[in-house]
Amino acid sequence: MSVNVAIIGAGVVGSAFINQLKNLKSSVAFHVVYLARNSKEAIVSKDYLPVDLLSYKTAAAGPALAMADLAAFLKASPKPTILIDNTSNAAVADFYPSFIKQGISIATPNKKAFSSDLATWNEIFANSAAPGGGLVYHEATVGAGLPIIGPLRDLVATGDKVEKIEGILSGSLSYIFNSLSTSEASSTKFSDVVNVAKELGYLEPDPRDDLNGMDFARKVTILARIAGFEVESPSSFAVDSLVPQELEACTSGADFLEKLPNFDVDFQKRKDDALAENKVLRYVGQVDFKANKVSVGIAKYDFDHPFASLKGSDNVVSFKTERYTNPLIIQGAGAGAEVTAHGVLADALKIAERIAA
Amino acid sequence: MSVNVAIIGAGVVGSAFINQLKNLKSSVAFHVVYLARNSKEAIVSKDYLPVDLLSYKTAAAGPALAMADLAAFLKASPKPTILIDNTSNAAVADFYPSFIKQGISIATPNKKAFSSDLATWNEIFANSAAPGGGLVYHEATVGAGLPIIGPLRDLVATGDKVEKIEGILSGSLSYIFNSLSTSEASSTKFSDVVNVAKELGYLEPDPRDDLNGMDFARKVTILARIAGFEVESPSSFAVDSLVPQELEACTSGADFLEKLPNFDVDFQKRKDDALAENKVLRYVGQVDFKANKVSVGIAKYDFDHPFASLKGSDNVVSFKTERYTNPLIIQGAGAGAEVTAHGVLADALKIAERIAA
Repeated sequence: MSVNVAIIGAGVVGSAFINQLKNLKSSVAFHVVYLARNSKEAIVSKDYLPVDLLSYKTAAAGPALAMADLAAFLKASPKPTILIDNTSNAAVADFYPSFIKQGISIATPNKKAFSSDLATWNEIFANSAAPGGGLVYHEATVGAGLPIIGPLRDLVATGDKVEKIEGILSGSLSYIFNSLSTSEASSTKFSDVVNVAKELGYLEPDPRDDLNGMDFARKVTILARIAGFEVESPSSFAVDSLVPQELEACTSGADFLEKLPNFDVDFQKRKDDALAENKVLRYVGQVDFKANKVSVGIAKYDFDHPFASLKGSDNVVSFKTERYTNPLIIQGAGAGAEVTAHGVLADALKIAERIAA
Repeated sequence: MSVNVAIIGAGVVGSAFINQLKNLKSSVAFHVVYLARNSKEAIVSKDYLPVDLLSYKTAAAGPALAMADLAAFLKASPKPTILIDNTSNAAVADFYPSFIKQGISIATPNKKAFSSDLATWNEIFANSAAPGGGLVYHEATVGAGLPIIGPLRDLVATGDKVEKIEGILSGSLSYIFNSLSTSEASSTKFSDVVNVAKELGYLEPDPRDDLNGMDFARKVTILARIAGFEVESPSSFAVDSLVPQELEACTSGADFLEKLPNFDVDFQKRKDDALAENKVLRYVGQVDFKANKVSVGIAKYDFDHPFASLKGSDNVVSFKTERYTNPLIIQGAGAGAEVTAHGVLADALKIAERIAA
């Protein structure tokens, strides 16, 4: 039993994926027939013979195929095919509906296609459900390799009713709030914590790209849709940005970081107020079916709530459902090359077990 | 696309399963061709036509088939078949290797086959991996519907190395210790908490069947084996029974409960000692690869450890691995008909997606 696999991307996640794939022990053989090292160059197999993964970094490569040509190449494959998109590229994501319609299955950590407009989401899953459609697994789009999307889909498929989803789905914002707001009084400054997070590599080059909550909102959009909440887009609900309005116009990340200390007093007051109620602050996403509301922003939690004792940059998600009146909670590292690659590879395996021939 | 399904058991879990199955929306049709209402009587379909699930409680039934006859009936089915074993029956479990060898897939919450001797475990999975072997999914054998076994198998399959598994895998023992030992000093008595747990229906008719830790040890055995620790049997490692030695000879559960207060002082001292170290007591299973040790018993946890803030009768499991240096943690209800049935049905769906024709 085998499948033919096309891999796009060999960056941090992509190379971790290839490394895990090299060592995979599975009853299904994965034959890599296309490997795009970057957006320009790719190794294209001749006659669908497997590419040697030991030498992919240095092997002779040609120009990367245009998406339509890649789809045609895979469609002509004598074996069922899986496309692994290890990029965060919107141009690749835009082509998902077409790949799937042509029977090519997809495993990916790329959030773009699943968190854009609702029409794209619907098209992807309608194409997948249609006769001959490819399968779509995207566990690593939320919480990297944490088992979140699969278990949520299982609950929905077996007839459970989701009542509330709450989650801390950003490693950088998890770190910032876990450090800032604890069960003991502290004068730890928001701007200091942001700077440490930056030094630790948790933040985008311009920290505002994390602090504005938009990446987080994309993940909340995905979970909401799986649970049956038809979110139009990540910008169709309230996202409480941590970027002070006055600093939105800063010309650079450095400029922003320089001015951020002016707002430490505001954050100190918010956390002191929470502490007076025996609560901590956390930056969370919420999908509340009863209130018919999706939101991303700061919320307060009791000291003994699982979100309050979160450590480091861990993610956590909580599903309150008709069956799980005490929520089902999953927590752990939600970012990083190895755990992201593992999430994608586990999905690829599940696809392979369904389609291999 | 459809599969033929045989269901054994229509008790508390079994009837919840049938109810969820009736309402299932899936691309694969499940045709129930055999339904054993109990160990004596079963509805056997004629010519593999689907049994009507709306009337299964009252429909005419014949004698339940012997396991060998059921296997022959399913093997002759024109469609791929799944056996759903919603019992905790050892006689059914003993026949798993044979069912699987004959190409019949299994989804079950029945722990028996997976937690007996290692040879049976090995036979089950060797038969499954052999050409023509049936698939085996048993998520609900540990933590009911919580996503534990699937995610652990994913980690192992993609090459992660498990370093330590810790878990609270018994609802009754979770409840007892969550009530007994908290971050605040209390004189709550062990015997009182056991009595309340009994009133709440968390305990077996003879509470010693929970308190001896053997059911818990079966779950630890299953997780250890998936992670690659070859546990010979649930009695081949240290299980710290909560039944005082002097009470092992009690002639009944009632007799046991009457004498249990004599031991409250011992438990009070243990929890006071823990509290002096700012810790709580929890009854946990541990699989420690570094120490090459599997154990079940009382352990101490810091107040801010996720196990310390566990609520009610929830289960929790923590996987520390090469990739998840901060452990991956899953928690929620680990018992109950609806969540157990959901775990079995989600497994049946995964099998159906792989084998339906």
